[in-house]
Amino acid sequence: MISINEHYKKLNSSYLFSDIAQRVSKYQKSHPEKKIIKLGIGDVTEPLPPACINAMHKACDEMGNRESFKGYGPEQGYEFLRETIAENDFKARGANISANDIFVSDGAKCDTGSFQELFTQSIKIAVPDPVYPVYVDTNVMAGRTGNYVDGRYQDLIYLESTKDNKFVPELPENQVDLIYLCYPNNPTGAIITKAELEKWVRYAEKNNALILFDAAYEAFIQDEALPKSIYEIPGADKVAVEFRSFSKTAGFTGIRCAYTVVPESCIVYDEAGEPTKLRDYWNRRQTTRFNGVSYPVQCAANAVYSEEGQKQVKELISYYLKNAVVIREGLTSMGYNCTGGENSPYIWVETQTDSWEFFDLLLEKAGVVCTPGSGFGKCGEGFVRISAFNQYEKVVEAIDRITKLK
Amino acid sequence: MISINEHYKKLNSSYLFSDIAQRVSKYQKSHPEKKIIKLGIGDVTEPLPPACINAMHKACDEMGNRESFKGYGPEQGYEFLRETIAENDFKARGANISANDIFVSDGAKCDTGSFQELFTQSIKIAVPDPVYPVYVDTNVMAGRTGNYVDGRYQDLIYLESTKDNKFVPELPENQVDLIYLCYPNNPTGAIITKAELEKWVRYAEKNNALILFDAAYEAFIQDEALPKSIYEIPGADKVAVEFRSFSKTAGFTGIRCAYTVVPESCIVYDEAGEPTKLRDYWNRRQTTRFNGVSYPVQCAANAVYSEEGQKQVKELISYYLKNAVVIREGLTSMGYNCTGGENSPYIWVETQTDSWEFFDLLLEKAGVVCTPGSGFGKCGEGFVRISAFNQYEKVVEAIDRITKLK
Repeated sequence: MISINEHYKKLNSSYLFSDIAQRVSKYQKSHPEKKIIKLGIGDVTEPLPPACINAMHKACDEMGNRESFKGYGPEQGYEFLRETIAENDFKARGANISANDIFVSDGAKCDTGSFQELFTQSIKIAVPDPVYPVYVDTNVMAGRTGNYVDGRYQDLIYLESTKDNKFVPELPENQVDLIYLCYPNNPTGAIITKAELEKWVRYAEKNNALILFDAAYEAFIQDEALPKSIYEIPGADKVAVEFRSFSKTAGFTGIRCAYTVVPESCIVYDEAGEPTKLRDYWNRRQTTRFNGVSYPVQCAANAVYSEEGQKQVKELISYYLKNAVVIREGLTSMGYNCTGGENSPYIWVETQTDSWEFFDLLLEKAGVVCTPGSGFGKCGEGFVRISAFNQYEKVVEAIDRITKLK
Repeated sequence: MISINEHYKKLNSSYLFSDIAQRVSKYQKSHPEKKIIKLGIGDVTEPLPPACINAMHKACDEMGNRESFKGYGPEQGYEFLRETIAENDFKARGANISANDIFVSDGAKCDTGSFQELFTQSIKIAVPDPVYPVYVDTNVMAGRTGNYVDGRYQDLIYLESTKDNKFVPELPENQVDLIYLCYPNNPTGAIITKAELEKWVRYAEKNNALILFDAAYEAFIQDEALPKSIYEIPGADKVAVEFRSFSKTAGFTGIRCAYTVVPESCIVYDEAGEPTKLRDYWNRRQTTRFNGVSYPVQCAANAVYSEEGQKQVKELISYYLKNAVVIREGLTSMGYNCTGGENSPYIWVETQTDSWEFFDLLLEKAGVVCTPGSGFGKCGEGFVRISAFNQYEKVVEAIDRITKLK
C-alpha cells in the first residue's frame, strides 16, 4: 500500500496567508466600493531595473541562435555570475568567500527549505519565534519536530524574540545543533549588530553547531556598521551557511533567482564524529535534484552588479525605504511602538490588542491589509507586520486612513 | 553536534557523467588535433523556437513596466499555462486532466527527485534497470534503499529491462508500493504499448500502488497508436502521477520548465489505511518549498502550444529524429542490434563487448562520445546509449567515422 508521509499531518493546518485572503475577500464582497490597500504579503510592486531587462533581452536573443544557444548550465550556476557575486557581495566587504562556495538557485525559499535534508534525523533545531514559517514546516515534513501542542512543536527549541531583547534572542540554554537566524528579520524588521552576531558564531564554534543565516533582506541595511553578511564575523565561514536573494534586492520575485553560500571551510560531522566538508553534501544534493537557474535570469542577476544596475537597485531600495519611513512615522505619531523600517522593509507594530483584532480594525475601518504577528509564532501575539512593499502613493493613503482612526 | 545525513554515504560515488568527462578530457589532451563529437549527454543543441523567444521578449517588457509587472506568481504555475497544457496535452487526447491537476515546475529532474518526500519511509520501491539515476539516488538520500552491495541497493526492487522483454519489464512478483516507469525510455529508447501500460495500471489498482510515470520524451512518439500519456489508460488517474518537460520537446534545457500531473482523483493511504488525496500533499509540498517558475519562461512554455509554436516544435523533433535514423541505420548496417531511435531520441546499442570497452573504442578510434550502458544499472552492461541530440552534420560525421572502423 502506498502510504503517505505521516508527518504532514502534524502541520498546523491554518495557513496564515490564506486566512488573511479569506477575511479580505469577505470584507471586499460586503464593501465593493472600498479600495483596499495591501501591506500584508512581502511582494515587490516596482518593475525590474532596466539593466536587468536589457540583459534578459540579450540573453533571449542568444537562446534563439544556434551559435550562442545554451542548453543545460552548471547546477551550481554559471561561473560568470558566481564570480561577480563573490567579488561584490563578499570580497568587497572583507569576507573571504569565493565563487566555488556559491550555489545559484531559483529562490531562498527553496534553499532554506531544502537545506535540512543534509542532516540526520536526531539533530536539535532552534528556530526564532516569531519565525518565517518555511524553516519550521520543512522540518515538520521531515519528521524532526514532534507534534504541535499548544501552539508549538514539542521537539523544536524556540528562540524568543521580544521587545525586551530588541528581537535578538538570547543564546540557547541547552546544546542545539542547527540554528536558523534571519537579519534584517522577517517579520520583525529588527537588525543584529556585529557584536551580537559574533556571540552566535562563537556559540556555534563551541557547540559544533551550524547556523543557517537568512540574509534575504540585507540590501535594506543603510547603517554601514551593521553586518550585511555573517561572513563579516571572523570564523563564521566554518560554522555558517548564508542565504541571499535577488527577490527583494532587485525585484526578482517573479523571475526567480537567489543563492546560497556554503564555504569550502564549513565543517559538519559524520556518525563517528569525524569532521567532513558540508559543501560536498550540498553539491551532491544540488547536482542530483536540481538543474540550474534559467540562463536569461542568471544574466539579469549578473546585471544587478553593473554600474547602471547598482544605481537602479539603490533607487529601488530607497523607494521602499521611503515608504517604510511613512509607515513608521505615521504609526509612531499615533503612539504605537514600532521596530524595523529603518534597515528593513518591514515595520513590526505593537498593537496594544490581540493581533487579529488589530488586523480586523485596519481592514474594516481603514481598508488596509497587514499581517497578524501571531501567525508567525507565539511571540508575535500583540504585534502586526506592515510591509513597505507597495507604491508610495498607496502607502501614503493607507497611513492617512489609519491615522484618521484615532 | 551537527551530524550529516548518513544515507549520503551509501551513494555509489562513481558518477557516470564525471567519469565520462575525465576520459574525454584525457583523450583530448593527448590528441589536441582531434575534433571530438559528443553523442553522450542528452542535451539539445538547436535554438529555442522563435515563438518562444518572442513570448519571452514580450514578457521581459511586461516586467519592466509598473502596470504590467508581476511579482510572485502562483506556486502551481499561472492558470493560463495550466489551462493550455490541460487542453492540448490531455483533453485533446481523451485524457480527463484539468488545469487544477497540473503543477508547473523548473524541471522534471526536480519533481521526479522530490516526489518521494510525500511517502512514508517503509514503502517498497521498484525502479527500472537500466534506470535514470535520479529515481534511485533521491531515495538513497532519503534512506529508503539500504546499502549498495554488488551493484545494487539491497532494499530496492529492480525491474529488469532486457532484450528478451524488449526493455519493458515484467510485473513484480511481490507487492511493491511505488513504481517508477519511463517511456519513451531513458536510456534504452524503448517504447511501451497501451496494452503493456494497461497491465501496470491494473497492477497498481490491485496492489494499492502508485506509478510515477516519466514522459519527458513523449514528444518523440510518432506512432499514433502509442500512448503519449499514462492517462490515456482508463483508471490511471487514480493510480498514477505523470512528469512532463519542455526540455526535450522544445529545447528548454537552458531556460527550465516542466510540469507534473497529480490528478484530483489520485488516491494514496494514511497510516490507518484510509484513502486520502495525493494532490493535497503535493500542493502543500510545493506551496511550502517552491515559489513558482520564472514568468517569462512560463510565457515561453505557453507559446509552445500556439499554431506557430507547434509547427516549430514539430520541426525540432523531426530534426533530432532524422539524426536518430542516421545513427540507428549506421549501427544496424554494421551488424549491431539497436533499440530506440524511432519514437525516441536515444539509440541503445548492444555492444557485443563490455560497455566501457566499447565506449573507449568509439572515443579512441572515432573520436565519438557515447554513454556506457553499465552506468545506468546492471542490465545496461553490454550496451551503450547514443544520443540524437546534436547537429545533423556532426551526427553524420560521427557515424561515418564509426562505420569506417569495421
